[in-house]
Amino acid sequence: MGHEINLTNFTVRCDLISETIDNKEIKDINIETKKYKDIRIERLNVKEDKSKVLNKKAGIYTTIFFNDITDYENRNDVITVVAKELYEILKRKALLGKKVLIVGLGNELSTPDSLGPKTVKNIIVTRHLFNMEEIEVEEGYSNVSAFSPGVYAATGIESFDIIKGIVDVTKPDYIIAIDALASSSIENVNKIIQITDSGIEPGSGIGNNRKELSAKLLSIPVIVIGVPTVVDAVTIVNDTISFLVKKISYNIMNIDNPKCKLINPKNHNYLNINYSLDSQERKKYLGLLGELKEHEIKELLSEVLTPIGYNFIVTPKEVDFLIDKLAIIISKSINNVLHDAINKNN
Amino acid sequence: MGHEINLTNFTVRCDLISETIDNKEIKDINIETKKYKDIRIERLNVKEDKSKVLNKKAGIYTTIFFNDITDYENRNDVITVVAKELYEILKRKALLGKKVLIVGLGNELSTPDSLGPKTVKNIIVTRHLFNMEEIEVEEGYSNVSAFSPGVYAATGIESFDIIKGIVDVTKPDYIIAIDALASSSIENVNKIIQITDSGIEPGSGIGNNRKELSAKLLSIPVIVIGVPTVVDAVTIVNDTISFLVKKISYNIMNIDNPKCKLINPKNHNYLNINYSLDSQERKKYLGLLGELKEHEIKELLSEVLTPIGYNFIVTPKEVDFLIDKLAIIISKSINNVLHDAINKNN
Amino acid sequence: MGHEINLTNFTVRCDLISETIDNKEIKDINIETKKYKDIRIERLNVKEDKSKVLNKKAGIYTTIFFNDITDYENRNDVITVVAKELYEILKRKALLGKKVLIVGLGNELSTPDSLGPKTVKNIIVTRHLFNMEEIEVEEGYSNVSAFSPGVYAATGIESFDIIKGIVDVTKPDYIIAIDALASSSIENVNKIIQITDSGIEPGSGIGNNRKELSAKLLSIPVIVIGVPTVVDAVTIVNDTISFLVKKISYNIMNIDNPKCKLINPKNHNYLNINYSLDSQERKKYLGLLGELKEHEIKELLSEVLTPIGYNFIVTPKEVDFLIDKLAIIISKSINNVLHDAINKNN
Amino acid sequence: MGHEINLTNFTVRCDLISETIDNKEIKDINIETKKYKDIRIERLNVKEDKSKVLNKKAGIYTTIFFNDITDYENRNDVITVVAKELYEILKRKALLGKKVLIVGLGNELSTPDSLGPKTVKNIIVTRHLFNMEEIEVEEGYSNVSAFSPGVYAATGIESFDIIKGIVDVTKPDYIIAIDALASSSIENVNKIIQITDSGIEPGSGIGNNRKELSAKLLSIPVIVIGVPTVVDAVTIVNDTISFLVKKISYNIMNIDNPKCKLINPKNHNYLNINYSLDSQERKKYLGLLGELKEHEIKELLSEVLTPIGYNFIVTPKEVDFLIDKLAIIISKSINNVLHDAINKNN
Repeated sequence: MGHEINLTNFTVRCDLISETIDNKEIKDINIETKKYKDIRIERLNVKEDKSKVLNKKAGIYTTIFFNDITDYENRNDVITVVAKELYEILKRKALLGKKVLIVGLGNELSTPDSLGPKTVKNIIVTRHLFNMEEIEVEEGYSNVSAFSPGVYAATGIESFDIIKGIVDVTKPDYIIAIDALASSSIENVNKIIQITDSGIEPGSGIGNNRKELSAKLLSIPVIVIGVPTVVDAVTIVNDTISFLVKKISYNIMNIDNPKCKLINPKNHNYLNINYSLDSQERKKYLGLLGELKEHEIKELLSEVLTPIGYNFIVTPKEVDFLIDKLAIIISKSINNVLHDAINKNN
Repeated sequence: MGHEINLTNFTVRCDLISETIDNKEIKDINIETKKYKDIRIERLNVKEDKSKVLNKKAGIYTTIFFNDITDYENRNDVITVVAKELYEILKRKALLGKKVLIVGLGNELSTPDSLGPKTVKNIIVTRHLFNMEEIEVEEGYSNVSAFSPGVYAATGIESFDIIKGIVDVTKPDYIIAIDALASSSIENVNKIIQITDSGIEPGSGIGNNRKELSAKLLSIPVIVIGVPTVVDAVTIVNDTISFLVKKISYNIMNIDNPKCKLINPKNHNYLNINYSLDSQERKKYLGLLGELKEHEIKELLSEVLTPIGYNFIVTPKEVDFLIDKLAIIISKSINNVLHDAINKNN
Repeated sequence: MGHEINLTNFTVRCDLISETIDNKEIKDINIETKKYKDIRIERLNVKEDKSKVLNKKAGIYTTIFFNDITDYENRNDVITVVAKELYEILKRKALLGKKVLIVGLGNELSTPDSLGPKTVKNIIVTRHLFNMEEIEVEEGYSNVSAFSPGVYAATGIESFDIIKGIVDVTKPDYIIAIDALASSSIENVNKIIQITDSGIEPGSGIGNNRKELSAKLLSIPVIVIGVPTVVDAVTIVNDTISFLVKKISYNIMNIDNPKCKLINPKNHNYLNINYSLDSQERKKYLGLLGELKEHEIKELLSEVLTPIGYNFIVTPKEVDFLIDKLAIIISKSINNVLHDAINKNN
Repeated sequence: MGHEINLTNFTVRCDLISETIDNKEIKDINIETKKYKDIRIERLNVKEDKSKVLNKKAGIYTTIFFNDITDYENRNDVITVVAKELYEILKRKALLGKKVLIVGLGNELSTPDSLGPKTVKNIIVTRHLFNMEEIEVEEGYSNVSAFSPGVYAATGIESFDIIKGIVDVTKPDYIIAIDALASSSIENVNKIIQITDSGIEPGSGIGNNRKELSAKLLSIPVIVIGVPTVVDAVTIVNDTISFLVKKISYNIMNIDNPKCKLINPKNHNYLNINYSLDSQERKKYLGLLGELKEHEIKELLSEVLTPIGYNFIVTPKEVDFLIDKLAIIISKSINNVLHDAINKNN
C-alpha cells in the first residue's frame, strides 16, 4: 500500500502537552507526577531548547487527569486540585494578589465551545468595587475583571484585538484565559484540565483564534486553562486501531489462561497489557495497515476521510451537562485562589 | 400641604427627548412630524443654545411611535420606517458605506435590559470577510463589526472603556449603539424607538453606564438607537393622576350628554378631551394635591415612595416577547440599511 | 365626584390570602403569627363558613414574609422556614412519605410566569427509580415525579387536562403545585411565599388556567405554593395613595418636632405612624378623592386606566434574578422535606 | 483471529430504515426513489412478512436525504419536500383535517436530543381556539395541540404514560411525534429526515423511551418524524474501514492513470468507484481484519471499545446550529401541511 499513498509531510495538530508527549515518544523530559485520591497531576517544564522538538511553546504545563465530575464530592476534589495547582503557578510567577483579567474564549452559542464564556459568568468580579472611591474592599479579595470576547465570525473582530484593546485601557497585571480545546486522544475528552503559562498557540483550540494570546504579544503574563471538549474522527479511528492491537495482544496472551474463561470478556480491561504484537503478528492481523507507524496511520485516515467531508469534529452527546460542570469547576477554582476571603467564610 | 413638604430642587431623569419636550412645555422648538400608516415620526433638532434648557445634548433626535409589533405585517412597517430614518441620518452625516461598529449596551441576563445584546446577535457582521485577503466581498455590503460590552457589575470594566479599547484597535468610522432606556411616561414603554446622533448621556439608560458614549469622547460619530423598556412607580402614579384629571374633565363635559348614556363608559377614550379642570375644580376633586404642578407631584411621589423602598422600576409582564420583537426590528432595520444587497436579493 | 362615576360592583381579584384579609378588614379570623429571625410566618384557617365572605376557598393558608433573598445566608433562612411549614402541612394531612407529583404551572418563556417550570427543573425526581425492579431505593427518599404542563396558548391543552391525564395514569397520592401569582399589594411582590391546601382558584395566577386544580376535581390533595411576581398599575397607584396619606399624617404629627429637623426627611420610615388623617384633613389634602374608601379608589382607578389600555401588569426589572432565587428556595425546600436523606448527608 | 474473539449474537441497533436495508443487503424490497433538486426521497413499504427479517415494524417509511441546510434557499427546498411527503402520508391515511396532537420527544436540556421539544415550540397551536365558544376559527386551519413530555430521568414518568394520559383526556384523532435518533452510518447524521407511520420502536432514539409509542398501544395512528443526530464510535470506525477499502480500491485502479497525477489526491471523491478489493487484496492490506464481514467488524469493534468505556455516542460540534435549523424545517413543514391558510397568505 505504501507506494500508492502519498504521505505528505503533515503535522498533527495537538493542543494538549500530554498528548504531544505521548505522540512524540520524547525522552529526557522530566515529568513530575502526583496523585490526589484518583486524580493524577502531571507537571512538565518545556524549556526553550525542547520547544521546537515538541512543537510547543516553552513554559510550564500542568495537566490534571480526572474521571467523574457528575458526583458532587468528586467535583469538589477536582476543584481542590485545580485551585492548588493554579495557586502554585501564580505564586511561582509572583502574581498572587495582582490585578487580573479573566478571559473566556470561544463561542457561547456552540455548546462544546462555550466553556470559556460559561466560566466567566461565574467569576466573582471586583474591579469595579476597587474603583469606587466610597468603597473600601475588605481584605482577602483580589482585583478581578472578566470578559468574553466572542468569536471572529460573530463580532468581525479577532479575540486578540478585543483583549489587546481592553488590556491597553484597563492595565491588568496578568490574564487568565479559559478555552475549549481539541483533543488528539479519545480518552482525554472532558477528562483533562491543562494549565499553562505559555500562552495559547495561534490556530489552536476550536474557536480558531488566529492571533496568539501570549505574554510576548500582550506584554503581561498569560495563564491558559484549557479542556479538550472535541475530537475528530481520524483520532477516534486511530485510537480504536491501537486499542484493537492491545485487545488482540491481550487475547493472544490469555488464550490458554483458564482464569480468563471465568471472566466475562466484556469486562476485561485489557489496556494494562504489557505485551505488544510483534511485526509479524501485526501483519497477520492487520495486513499492511499494521505495518504503518501511528503518525502514518493518522495521515492515511485523514486522506480517507477529509476529501469526502467525513472527518467530523465531534463531542460526546452529554456535552451540555459536562460543560456546565467543567465551568463550575474552573470558576470555583479561580474564585477560591483569587479571593482568599471566600475560603475563610465557608 | 405645601409647607410640610420640602420640595428639593430635583431634576427629573428623562432619557427620551419626546418626554422632555412634553415635560418642559418648551416653545419655539421646531418639530417635524410625519406619518406612515399609523406610525408617527417626529424629528427634532436640538441646537447648542437650547441644549441647556432641555437638559439634553445638542443633536438630531428622531422618535418613532408605533402601536402593535406582535403582528408580522405591522412589524415590517416599523422596520421600513426605522430603516428609512436611520438611512437619512447616515446620509446626512455622510456615513453611508463607511466602517461601523455596532454596540449592544446593557445586560443580556436581565430581560428588560437585554435589548442591545439581543440586537447585536442578529446583526450581519462582515468585517472579518473584508480582512481576509483571499476573499473579495461582493458589492452592496458595508464593513460591519458588532459587540456587546456587558455590564460594569459583571465585567468590572466600564462599557466605555471596553468600547474605547476596541475602537482604538479596530478603527471604525462610526458607532451605532443600541440600548434599553427608562421611560418617564407610561404610554411610551416598548412603544417608541428613538434614534439620535447626540451620543448617550452618562447615567442614562437602565444599565448605569457612567462614562458618556459620545462623538466627543470617542472621536467618531455615535448614533444611539434607544427603546424605553422600564418605568418607575413615580411615573406610573403621576401619569395616572393626570389621566384621572382628564377623566373627571370628560365626565363633567358629558354629564348631560345623552349620547354618552348609550356608550359603555369602560370604552370611552377620554384622552382627546380638550377641556381641562380649572383651579377650583382641581381643588374640589383632588384637594391640595390638585394644586401642585406636574414636576411638584413627581417630587412629592418620589418623597413618598423612595424612603420606604417602593419606587420600583418595573417592566410589563410580556417583556420577554416584546424585547425579542424589538431586537428583530432594530437588527433588521440596521442590516437593511448597511447591506444594500439584502434588499435586492429579497 | 361621586355622581359622575359609575361605581360598578366590581370584585377585586386577589390571589393572596394575606391581602384579602387586609382588604376586607375582616374580624374574628384567628391568625397565628410566628417569627424566625426577620422572617414572619402567618397561619390562617379559612373554615367553610368564612369561605364566602373572604371569597377564598376553605383551607389552611400559610404565608411567609421575607425581605432579602439575594444573600446566601438569608436565602438559607427562608429555605429553613418554607421547608418547616411545608413539613407541618404534609404531616397534618398525613402525606409524609406518600407518592407525590410536583407540578410547575406557568409559562417558562415568560420570566415573571416561569417560577413553576424553573422550580420543577431543580426537583430531585425518584419515581423512575422506585419503578425499576433491579434497584432498591435507599431509605430516606420519597417517590417523587415532576412535571410542567406549559400554558394553554402554547399547547392548546388546559393545564388541568394534562395533569388529570397524568394523575389517572401514574396515580400519585397528592400534588404539590408551584405557581406565580398576581399581587394586590406592591409590598408583597417577590416577598411572600404562600402555601395552602385549598387548591388553586380558577382564573387566578397569571397563567390564566381556567379549570380549578383542586382536591375536589382531582380526587387527591393539592398543596399550592405561590409567589406574587406581578402587580397591576391600579394596585401601584392605590398603594401609593395610601402611603401618601400616611406620609402626610407623619408630617403633620412631626411638624413641630425639633428632632425631625435633624433627620434627613428622605430617610424617614413613616409607615409605622399610628396617627391617620381625619375626614376633614383627607378632604383638605386630597379633595373628593380623599373621601373614597379603598375599594372605591381601586374601582375608580380601574375605570381611568382600563379603557385607555394602561392598566399594565408589571414586574420589577430585576425579575430574572429574583425568579431564579425563588425557584432555588422552593425546590430546595421541597427536596429537603421529601428526601430526608439529603439533610442527613449534608 | 477468528477463534480468539467470541462473536456473540449481537443485534445492531438501528433506528433508520435506510440503514437497516443497507446493512441487511435485503433483496426483493421495492424502494421508490424520487429527486427534487439535489434532495433524494426514498419510499419503502415494509409489509408484515418482511417486518421480522428487517427487525423493523411494518409500515411505510419515507426517507429524505439532503445536503446543506444552512443556506436559506436550500432549507426552503427541504421544507417543500418534507411538507409534500407528510401531506401524502396524511392523505393516504385519511388524516388531513383531523385533530392532531404533536409530540416532541427527547430532552430539551441536551442539545442533540432537543429536536422534538424545539420543534414543538414553533408549532402553530389552535386547539384552544376551536374550544372557545365565542371564536369561530377561520377556514384553512386544523385543530392542533402540541406537547413535550420531557424525559424519564427528569420527570420520573415515562413519555408513553404522559402521552397516554393526554390522549385519553383530549381525544386527538392522531399523533405526529418528533424525535432525535441514533444513526448507524456516519453519512446520515443530521442529513436525513425519516417519516413513518409505524410508530417508534421501544428503546430506540436517544431518549431511551421504553414503552412503544404506536397505533397499537395508543389506539390512534402515530406518525413519527425522526432525524439521526448522534452516532457511536463503533459506527465511525466501521464506516471509516469501509471507506478505507474503497480508497485503496480507487488507488489500485488509478495507479497508472496519468490523469490522476494532475488531480490533487485530496480532492478525489473515490466513493463512486465500482471496483472493490478481492479477498486476496483485502487480506494483503488489512490482514485478518479484512476477512471479516461488516457485522463481524462491528461486533469486534464493540468488544474493543465497550469494556473500556470508549464507545462514546457523539454528535458533530456544530450540533447547536444544526438542531435549530432542523427544528425550523420540521415545524414549518408541519405548519404548512396542517394549516392550509398559511400557504395562501404567504
